[in-house]
Amino acid sequence: MAETLLYHFAFDPASRAARLALGEARIEWTETAVRPWEADCPVRDLNPSGMPPVLQTTHQGRALTLCEIASILGWIEDRTKDAVLLPGDAAERAEARRLVAWFERRFTDEVDAVLLHERMEKPLLRLGPPEARALREGREALKAHLALLESLAAARDWLAGRRLSQADLVAAAHLSILDYFGEVPWASWPSLKTWYMKIKSRPCFRPLLADRFPGVAAVAWYADLDF
Amino acid sequence: MAETLLYHFAFDPASRAARLALGEARIEWTETAVRPWEADCPVRDLNPSGMPPVLQTTHQGRALTLCEIASILGWIEDRTKDAVLLPGDAAERAEARRLVAWFERRFTDEVDAVLLHERMEKPLLRLGPPEARALREGREALKAHLALLESLAAARDWLAGRRLSQADLVAAAHLSILDYFGEVPWASWPSLKTWYMKIKSRPCFRPLLADRFPGVAAVAWYADLDF
Repeated sequence: MAETLLYHFAFDPASRAARLALGEARIEWTETAVRPWEADCPVRDLNPSGMPPVLQTTHQGRALTLCEIASILGWIEDRTKDAVLLPGDAAERAEARRLVAWFERRFTDEVDAVLLHERMEKPLLRLGPPEARALREGREALKAHLALLESLAAARDWLAGRRLSQADLVAAAHLSILDYFGEVPWASWPSLKTWYMKIKSRPCFRPLLADRFPGVAAVAWYADLDF
Repeated sequence: MAETLLYHFAFDPASRAARLALGEARIEWTETAVRPWEADCPVRDLNPSGMPPVLQTTHQGRALTLCEIASILGWIEDRTKDAVLLPGDAAERAEARRLVAWFERRFTDEVDAVLLHERMEKPLLRLGPPEARALREGREALKAHLALLESLAAARDWLAGRRLSQADLVAAAHLSILDYFGEVPWASWPSLKTWYMKIKSRPCFRPLLADRFPGVAAVAWYADLDF
Protein backbone atom coordinates (compact mmCIF):
# COMPACT_ATOMS: atom_id res chain seq x y z
CA MET A 1 0.00 0.00 0.00
CA ALA A 2 1.28 3.47 -0.88
CA GLU A 3 2.22 5.47 2.15
CA THR A 4 1.04 8.99 2.77
CA LEU A 5 3.37 10.97 5.02
CA LEU A 6 2.60 14.35 6.60
CA TYR A 7 5.36 16.64 7.83
CA HIS A 8 3.80 18.89 10.45
CA PHE A 9 4.40 21.01 13.50
CA ALA A 10 1.74 20.48 16.16
CA PHE A 11 1.36 24.20 16.97
CA ASP A 12 1.28 25.48 13.40
CA PRO A 13 -2.34 26.27 12.42
CA ALA A 14 -1.95 25.07 8.81
CA SER A 15 -0.38 21.80 9.99
CA ARG A 16 -3.31 21.27 12.35
CA ALA A 17 -5.77 22.01 9.55
CA ALA A 18 -4.03 19.36 7.42
CA ARG A 19 -4.33 16.74 10.19
CA LEU A 20 -8.02 17.57 10.71
CA ALA A 21 -8.72 17.43 6.96
CA LEU A 22 -6.93 14.09 6.48
CA GLY A 23 -8.77 12.66 9.47
CA GLU A 24 -12.15 14.00 8.41
CA ALA A 25 -11.62 12.64 4.87
CA ARG A 26 -10.66 9.24 6.37
CA ILE A 27 -7.32 9.13 4.63
CA GLU A 28 -4.71 6.92 6.29
CA TRP A 29 -1.42 8.65 6.91
CA THR A 30 1.72 8.55 8.97
CA GLU A 31 3.38 11.66 10.26
CA THR A 32 6.74 13.21 11.03
CA ALA A 33 6.80 16.06 13.51
CA VAL A 34 9.20 18.82 12.43
CA ARG A 35 10.64 21.95 14.01
CA PRO A 36 10.53 24.45 11.12
CA TRP A 37 12.80 26.99 12.81
CA GLU A 38 15.73 24.54 12.91
CA ALA A 39 18.31 24.55 10.13
CA ASP A 40 18.09 20.80 9.48
CA CYS A 41 14.29 20.70 9.27
CA PRO A 42 13.53 18.24 6.40
CA VAL A 43 10.71 20.47 5.14
CA ARG A 44 13.32 22.98 3.91
CA ASP A 45 14.22 20.62 1.06
CA LEU A 46 10.60 19.92 0.17
CA ASN A 47 8.81 23.28 0.30
CA PRO A 48 10.37 26.52 -1.00
CA SER A 49 8.68 28.37 1.88
CA GLY A 50 10.45 26.05 4.32
CA MET A 51 7.21 25.59 6.22
CA PRO A 52 4.92 22.67 7.06
CA PRO A 53 2.51 21.21 6.25
CA VAL A 54 3.98 19.09 3.46
CA LEU A 55 2.31 15.84 2.40
CA GLN A 56 4.15 13.15 0.47
CA THR A 57 2.04 10.56 -1.25
CA THR A 58 1.76 8.69 -4.55
CA HIS A 59 -0.71 9.31 -7.35
CA GLN A 60 -1.07 6.85 -10.22
CA GLY A 61 2.26 5.31 -9.28
CA ARG A 62 4.16 8.61 -9.19
CA ALA A 63 5.48 10.38 -6.11
CA LEU A 64 3.51 13.51 -5.31
CA THR A 65 4.58 16.26 -2.92
CA LEU A 66 1.90 18.64 -1.69
CA CYS A 67 3.16 21.87 -0.12
CA GLU A 68 0.97 24.26 1.90
CA ILE A 69 -2.52 23.66 3.19
CA ALA A 70 -4.15 24.88 -0.07
CA SER A 71 -2.56 22.03 -2.05
CA ILE A 72 -3.49 19.46 0.58
CA LEU A 73 -7.13 20.58 0.78
CA GLY A 74 -7.30 20.73 -3.02
CA TRP A 75 -5.86 17.23 -3.38
CA ILE A 76 -8.40 15.86 -0.88
CA GLU A 77 -11.23 17.32 -2.99
CA ASP A 78 -9.67 16.02 -6.22
CA ARG A 79 -9.47 12.43 -4.98
CA THR A 80 -13.19 11.71 -5.34
CA LYS A 81 -16.00 13.00 -7.52
CA ASP A 82 -18.02 13.85 -4.42
CA ALA A 83 -17.28 17.00 -2.47
CA VAL A 84 -15.53 15.90 0.73
CA LEU A 85 -14.72 19.03 2.68
CA LEU A 86 -16.58 21.53 0.51
CA PRO A 87 -20.39 21.70 0.49
CA GLY A 88 -22.24 20.86 -2.72
CA ASP A 89 -24.24 24.10 -2.61
CA ALA A 90 -22.57 26.91 -4.62
CA ALA A 91 -23.21 29.62 -2.02
CA GLU A 92 -21.86 27.46 0.79
CA ARG A 93 -18.80 26.53 -1.27
CA ALA A 94 -18.11 30.22 -1.83
CA GLU A 95 -18.57 30.93 1.87
CA ALA A 96 -16.26 28.07 2.87
CA ARG A 97 -13.56 29.39 0.53
CA ARG A 98 -14.04 32.95 1.79
CA LEU A 99 -13.61 31.82 5.39
CA VAL A 100 -10.51 29.75 4.65
CA ALA A 101 -8.97 32.83 2.98
CA TRP A 102 -10.06 34.95 5.96
CA PHE A 103 -8.18 32.72 8.39
CA GLU A 104 -5.13 32.33 6.17
CA ARG A 105 -4.81 36.08 5.80
CA ARG A 106 -6.74 38.26 8.27
CA PHE A 107 -6.78 35.98 11.30
CA THR A 108 -3.14 35.02 10.76
CA ASP A 109 -2.01 38.65 10.44
CA GLU A 110 -4.17 40.21 13.14
CA VAL A 111 -4.31 37.47 15.78
CA ASP A 112 -1.76 34.66 15.27
CA ALA A 113 1.13 36.97 14.32
CA VAL A 114 0.63 38.83 17.60
CA LEU A 115 -0.74 36.36 20.17
CA LEU A 116 1.02 33.20 18.97
CA HIS A 117 4.22 35.19 18.62
CA GLU A 118 4.02 36.29 22.25
CA ARG A 119 2.75 33.04 23.75
CA MET A 120 4.41 30.42 21.54
CA GLU A 121 7.31 31.71 19.44
CA LYS A 122 8.92 33.72 22.24
CA PRO A 123 9.35 30.75 24.63
CA LEU A 124 10.26 28.48 21.71
CA LEU A 125 12.98 30.75 20.35
CA ARG A 126 13.95 32.17 23.78
CA LEU A 127 12.99 35.70 22.79
CA GLY A 128 12.14 36.78 26.32
CA PRO A 129 8.83 37.27 28.14
CA PRO A 130 5.61 38.36 26.39
CA GLU A 131 4.91 42.09 26.19
CA ALA A 132 1.78 43.29 27.97
CA ARG A 133 0.90 45.75 25.21
CA ALA A 134 1.18 43.16 22.42
CA LEU A 135 -0.91 40.68 24.41
CA ARG A 136 -3.58 43.35 24.93
CA GLU A 137 -3.65 44.24 21.23
CA GLY A 138 -3.73 40.61 20.15
CA ARG A 139 -6.60 39.86 22.53
CA GLU A 140 -8.57 42.86 21.26
CA ALA A 141 -8.08 41.67 17.67
CA LEU A 142 -9.11 38.14 18.65
CA LYS A 143 -12.27 39.50 20.29
CA ALA A 144 -13.36 41.16 17.03
CA HIS A 145 -12.80 37.89 15.14
CA LEU A 146 -14.66 35.87 17.79
CA ALA A 147 -17.63 38.27 17.53
CA LEU A 148 -17.80 37.65 13.77
CA LEU A 149 -17.50 33.88 14.24
CA GLU A 150 -20.15 33.94 16.99
CA SER A 151 -22.64 35.53 14.58
CA LEU A 152 -21.91 32.81 12.00
CA ALA A 153 -22.17 30.00 14.56
CA ALA A 154 -25.48 31.43 15.88
CA ALA A 155 -27.04 31.50 12.42
CA ARG A 156 -25.76 28.25 10.92
CA ASP A 157 -25.11 24.59 11.72
CA TRP A 158 -21.48 24.94 10.63
CA LEU A 159 -19.46 28.06 9.85
CA ALA A 160 -20.14 28.08 6.10
CA GLY A 161 -23.69 26.68 6.25
CA ARG A 162 -25.45 23.36 6.71
CA ARG A 163 -22.42 21.13 6.17
CA LEU A 164 -19.08 20.79 7.86
CA SER A 165 -16.45 22.21 5.52
CA GLN A 166 -12.83 23.24 5.14
CA ALA A 167 -13.83 26.47 6.93
CA ASP A 168 -14.66 24.63 10.17
CA LEU A 169 -11.41 22.67 10.09
CA VAL A 170 -9.24 25.70 9.38
CA ALA A 171 -11.04 27.80 12.02
CA ALA A 172 -10.77 25.01 14.60
CA ALA A 173 -7.07 24.58 13.78
CA HIS A 174 -6.32 28.23 14.59
CA LEU A 175 -8.63 28.46 17.60
CA SER A 176 -7.46 25.20 19.18
CA ILE A 177 -3.88 26.50 19.40
CA LEU A 178 -5.02 29.72 21.03
CA ASP A 179 -7.21 27.61 23.32
CA TYR A 180 -4.21 25.55 24.41
CA PHE A 181 -2.68 28.77 25.75
CA GLY A 182 -5.96 29.78 27.40
CA GLU A 183 -6.56 32.68 25.02
CA VAL A 184 -10.16 31.87 24.01
CA PRO A 185 -12.82 33.08 26.52
CA TRP A 186 -15.45 30.58 25.36
CA ALA A 187 -18.04 31.61 27.99
CA SER A 188 -18.49 34.96 26.20
CA TRP A 189 -19.35 33.28 22.89
CA PRO A 190 -22.02 30.61 23.55
CA SER A 191 -22.86 29.67 19.95
CA LEU A 192 -19.21 29.46 19.00
CA LYS A 193 -18.59 27.32 22.09
CA THR A 194 -21.34 24.90 20.99
CA TRP A 195 -19.76 24.76 17.50
CA TYR A 196 -16.33 24.09 19.04
CA MET A 197 -17.70 21.33 21.30
CA LYS A 198 -19.25 19.73 18.21
CA ILE A 199 -16.07 19.78 16.16
CA LYS A 200 -13.87 18.87 19.13
CA SER A 201 -15.91 15.68 19.58
CA ARG A 202 -15.17 14.40 16.10
CA PRO A 203 -12.63 11.59 15.76
CA CYS A 204 -10.36 13.77 13.58
CA PHE A 205 -9.78 16.08 16.53
CA ARG A 206 -8.56 13.46 18.99
CA PRO A 207 -4.85 13.51 18.06
CA LEU A 208 -4.71 17.30 18.48
CA LEU A 209 -5.98 17.05 22.04
CA ALA A 210 -2.93 14.94 22.93
CA ASP A 211 -0.46 17.58 21.66
CA ARG A 212 1.75 19.11 24.32
CA PHE A 213 3.85 22.26 24.04
CA PRO A 214 7.26 21.98 25.74
CA GLY A 215 7.29 23.91 29.00
CA VAL A 216 3.71 25.20 28.78
CA ALA A 217 0.84 23.14 30.18
CA ALA A 218 -2.49 23.33 28.33
CA VAL A 219 -5.38 25.11 30.03
CA ALA A 220 -7.46 22.79 32.19
CA TRP A 221 -10.26 22.38 29.63
CA TYR A 222 -8.08 21.98 26.52
CA ALA A 223 -8.74 18.27 26.07
CA ASP A 224 -12.20 18.17 27.68
CA LEU A 225 -14.99 17.48 25.22
CA ASP A 226 -17.50 18.96 27.70
CA PHE A 227 -15.87 22.17 28.89
CA MET B 1 -29.15 36.62 -19.66
CA ALA B 2 -27.92 36.64 -16.09
CA GLU B 3 -25.41 39.36 -15.42
CA THR B 4 -22.07 38.78 -13.75
CA LEU B 5 -20.71 41.89 -12.05
CA LEU B 6 -17.18 42.28 -10.67
CA TYR B 7 -16.33 44.91 -8.06
CA HIS B 8 -12.63 45.60 -8.40
CA PHE B 9 -9.85 48.09 -7.85
CA ALA B 10 -7.47 48.26 -10.79
CA PHE B 11 -4.31 48.34 -8.65
CA ASP B 12 -5.30 45.58 -6.21
CA PRO B 13 -3.47 42.35 -7.13
CA ALA B 14 -6.40 40.08 -6.23
CA SER B 15 -8.80 42.22 -8.30
CA ARG B 16 -6.42 41.98 -11.26
CA ALA B 17 -6.19 38.21 -10.82
CA ALA B 18 -10.00 38.03 -10.90
CA ARG B 19 -10.16 40.01 -14.17
CA LEU B 20 -7.47 37.81 -15.75
CA ALA B 21 -9.21 34.62 -14.60
CA LEU B 22 -12.64 35.71 -15.87
CA GLY B 23 -11.10 36.73 -19.19
CA GLU B 24 -9.05 33.56 -19.56
CA ALA B 25 -12.13 31.43 -18.75
CA ARG B 26 -14.13 33.41 -21.36
CA ILE B 27 -16.82 34.42 -18.90
CA GLU B 28 -18.75 37.57 -19.84
CA TRP B 29 -18.89 40.15 -17.10
CA THR B 30 -19.45 43.81 -16.40
CA GLU B 31 -17.45 45.67 -13.78
CA THR B 32 -17.67 48.41 -11.21
CA ALA B 33 -14.42 50.07 -10.16
CA VAL B 34 -14.34 50.73 -6.41
CA ARG B 35 -12.08 52.66 -4.05
CA PRO B 36 -11.85 50.31 -1.06
CA TRP B 37 -10.36 52.92 1.27
CA GLU B 38 -13.44 55.17 1.01
CA ALA B 39 -16.19 54.89 3.62
CA ASP B 40 -19.00 54.52 1.05
CA CYS B 41 -17.28 51.77 -0.97
CA PRO B 42 -20.09 49.33 -1.93
CA VAL B 43 -17.84 46.34 -1.26
CA ARG B 44 -18.09 47.06 2.47
CA ASP B 45 -21.67 45.75 2.47
CA LEU B 46 -20.81 42.68 0.41
CA ASN B 47 -17.55 41.33 1.85
CA PRO B 48 -16.82 41.23 5.61
CA SER B 49 -13.18 42.06 4.82
CA GLY B 50 -14.35 45.21 3.02
CA MET B 51 -12.02 44.40 0.13
CA PRO B 52 -12.42 43.65 -3.56
CA PRO B 53 -12.64 41.49 -5.57
CA VAL B 54 -16.31 40.61 -5.13
CA LEU B 55 -18.25 38.93 -7.92
CA GLN B 56 -22.04 38.94 -8.06
CA THR B 57 -23.67 36.42 -10.33
CA THR B 58 -26.56 33.98 -10.44
CA HIS B 59 -26.37 30.21 -10.07
CA GLN B 60 -29.41 28.05 -10.83
CA GLY B 61 -31.64 31.09 -10.57
CA ARG B 62 -30.27 32.23 -7.19
CA ALA B 63 -28.10 35.26 -6.54
CA LEU B 64 -24.54 34.27 -5.66
CA THR B 65 -21.93 36.57 -4.11
CA LEU B 66 -18.31 35.47 -4.34
CA CYS B 67 -15.90 37.26 -1.99
CA GLU B 68 -12.10 37.09 -2.29
CA ILE B 69 -10.07 35.68 -5.15
CA ALA B 70 -10.17 32.12 -3.71
CA SER B 71 -13.96 31.95 -4.08
CA ILE B 72 -13.85 33.40 -7.58
CA LEU B 73 -11.15 30.98 -8.79
CA GLY B 74 -12.99 28.09 -7.12
CA TRP B 75 -16.28 29.04 -8.77
CA ILE B 76 -14.61 29.24 -12.20
CA GLU B 77 -13.32 25.66 -11.72
CA ASP B 78 -16.71 24.45 -10.44
CA ARG B 79 -18.60 25.73 -13.50
CA THR B 80 -17.40 22.98 -15.82
CA LYS B 81 -16.31 19.39 -15.44
CA ASP B 82 -13.04 20.22 -17.21
CA ALA B 83 -10.23 21.94 -15.39
CA VAL B 84 -10.16 25.53 -16.64
CA LEU B 85 -7.38 27.31 -14.79
CA LEU B 86 -5.92 24.29 -13.01
CA PRO B 87 -3.89 21.66 -14.90
CA GLY B 88 -5.25 18.12 -15.10
CA ASP B 89 -1.98 16.62 -13.86
CA ALA B 90 -1.96 16.10 -10.07
CA ALA B 91 1.59 17.38 -9.56
CA GLU B 92 0.93 20.50 -11.63
CA ARG B 93 -2.34 21.14 -9.79
CA ALA B 94 -0.46 20.95 -6.48
CA GLU B 95 2.23 23.29 -7.81
CA ALA B 96 -0.36 25.79 -9.09
CA ARG B 97 -2.04 25.84 -5.69
CA ARG B 98 1.29 26.18 -3.90
CA LEU B 99 2.22 29.17 -6.04
CA VAL B 100 -1.14 30.88 -5.58
CA ALA B 101 -0.71 30.51 -1.81
CA TRP B 102 2.87 31.78 -2.12
CA PHE B 103 1.70 35.00 -3.79
CA GLU B 104 -1.27 35.49 -1.50
CA ARG B 105 0.91 35.17 1.57
CA ARG B 106 4.69 35.52 1.05
CA PHE B 107 4.78 37.84 -1.93
CA THR B 108 2.00 40.01 -0.46
CA ASP B 109 3.74 40.29 2.92
CA GLU B 110 7.31 40.68 1.74
CA VAL B 111 6.93 42.70 -1.46
CA ASP B 112 3.47 44.26 -1.93
CA ALA B 113 3.10 45.37 1.69
CA VAL B 114 6.37 47.30 1.37
CA LEU B 115 6.73 48.41 -2.27
CA LEU B 116 3.06 48.95 -3.11
CA HIS B 117 2.62 50.74 0.19
CA GLU B 118 5.42 53.16 -0.68
CA ARG B 119 4.63 53.61 -4.38
CA MET B 120 0.83 53.30 -4.44
CA GLU B 121 -0.86 53.69 -1.06
CA LYS B 122 1.20 56.67 0.06
CA PRO B 123 0.23 58.91 -2.90
CA LEU B 124 -3.33 57.56 -2.81
CA LEU B 125 -3.88 58.28 0.88
CA ARG B 126 -1.56 61.35 0.96
CA LEU B 127 0.79 59.74 3.45
CA GLY B 128 3.84 61.64 2.27
CA PRO B 129 6.79 60.67 0.07
CA PRO B 130 8.21 57.11 -0.11
CA GLU B 131 10.99 56.24 2.32
CA ALA B 132 14.32 55.31 0.77
CA ARG B 133 14.98 52.54 3.28
CA ALA B 134 11.59 50.89 2.74
CA LEU B 135 12.01 51.09 -1.03
CA ARG B 136 15.45 49.45 -0.73
CA GLU B 137 14.11 46.64 1.48
CA GLY B 138 11.11 46.05 -0.76
CA ARG B 139 13.31 45.88 -3.85
CA GLU B 140 15.65 43.42 -2.16
CA ALA B 141 12.69 41.22 -1.22
CA LEU B 142 11.33 41.45 -4.77
CA LYS B 143 14.71 40.40 -6.16
CA ALA B 144 14.64 37.18 -4.12
CA HIS B 145 11.15 36.40 -5.40
CA LEU B 146 12.11 37.20 -9.00
CA ALA B 147 15.08 34.83 -8.72
CA LEU B 148 12.75 32.01 -7.65
CA LEU B 149 10.28 32.81 -10.43
CA GLU B 150 13.12 33.00 -12.99
CA SER B 151 14.16 29.45 -12.11
CA LEU B 152 10.57 28.24 -12.59
CA ALA B 153 10.16 30.11 -15.87
CA ALA B 154 13.48 28.73 -17.17
CA ALA B 155 12.46 25.14 -16.45
CA ARG B 156 8.81 25.13 -17.48
CA ASP B 157 6.41 26.41 -20.15
CA TRP B 158 4.27 28.07 -17.50
CA LEU B 159 4.96 28.67 -13.82
CA ALA B 160 3.32 25.49 -12.55
CA GLY B 161 4.23 23.26 -15.54
CA ARG B 162 3.08 22.62 -19.06
CA ARG B 163 -0.25 24.44 -18.86
CA LEU B 164 -1.24 27.98 -18.07
CA SER B 165 -2.85 27.96 -14.61
CA GLN B 166 -4.15 30.10 -11.76
CA ALA B 167 -0.50 30.51 -10.72
CA ASP B 168 0.39 32.42 -13.89
CA LEU B 169 -2.62 34.71 -13.57
CA VAL B 170 -2.02 35.47 -9.89
CA ALA B 171 1.71 36.02 -10.47
CA ALA B 172 1.06 38.28 -13.46
CA ALA B 173 -1.52 40.22 -11.47
CA HIS B 174 1.02 41.07 -8.75
CA LEU B 175 3.95 41.67 -11.11
CA SER B 176 1.97 43.84 -13.54
CA ILE B 177 1.17 46.37 -10.79
CA LEU B 178 4.82 46.54 -9.76
CA ASP B 179 5.69 46.86 -13.44
CA TYR B 180 3.36 49.85 -13.83
CA PHE B 181 5.51 51.63 -11.23
CA GLY B 182 8.72 50.53 -12.95
CA GLU B 183 9.73 48.19 -10.14
CA VAL B 184 10.43 45.05 -12.22
CA PRO B 185 13.92 45.00 -13.81
CA TRP B 186 12.93 42.53 -16.55
CA ALA B 187 16.33 42.59 -18.29
CA SER B 188 17.87 40.76 -15.33
CA TRP B 189 15.41 37.88 -15.58
CA PRO B 190 15.28 36.72 -19.22
CA SER B 191 13.14 33.59 -18.80
CA LEU B 192 10.66 35.41 -16.61
CA LYS B 193 10.54 38.22 -19.16
CA THR B 194 9.68 35.72 -21.91
CA TRP B 195 6.96 34.27 -19.68
CA TYR B 196 5.59 37.76 -19.01
CA MET B 197 5.59 38.66 -22.72
CA LYS B 198 3.64 35.47 -23.37
CA ILE B 199 0.98 36.14 -20.75
CA LYS B 200 0.84 39.86 -21.53
CA SER B 201 -0.07 39.02 -25.14
CA ARG B 202 -3.17 37.08 -24.17
CA PRO B 203 -6.55 38.76 -24.74
CA CYS B 204 -7.37 38.57 -21.01
CA PHE B 205 -4.49 40.97 -20.29
CA ARG B 206 -5.58 43.77 -22.60
CA PRO B 207 -7.92 45.63 -20.20
CA LEU B 208 -5.18 45.76 -17.53
CA LEU B 209 -2.81 47.50 -19.92
CA ALA B 210 -5.31 50.37 -20.23
CA ASP B 211 -5.41 50.95 -16.43
CA ARG B 212 -4.06 54.29 -15.29
CA PHE B 213 -3.12 55.30 -11.76
CA PRO B 214 -4.10 58.88 -10.87
CA GLY B 215 -1.08 61.13 -10.83
CA VAL B 216 1.49 58.45 -11.73
CA ALA B 217 2.26 57.67 -15.36
CA ALA B 218 3.07 54.04 -16.20
CA VAL B 219 6.66 53.19 -17.18
CA ALA B 220 7.24 53.50 -20.91
CA TRP B 221 7.02 49.75 -21.59
CA TYR B 222 4.00 48.99 -19.39
CA ALA B 223 1.55 48.47 -22.25
CA ASP B 224 4.08 47.27 -24.84
CA LEU B 225 3.70 43.62 -25.78
CA ASP B 226 7.25 43.62 -27.09
CA PHE B 227 9.31 45.38 -24.40
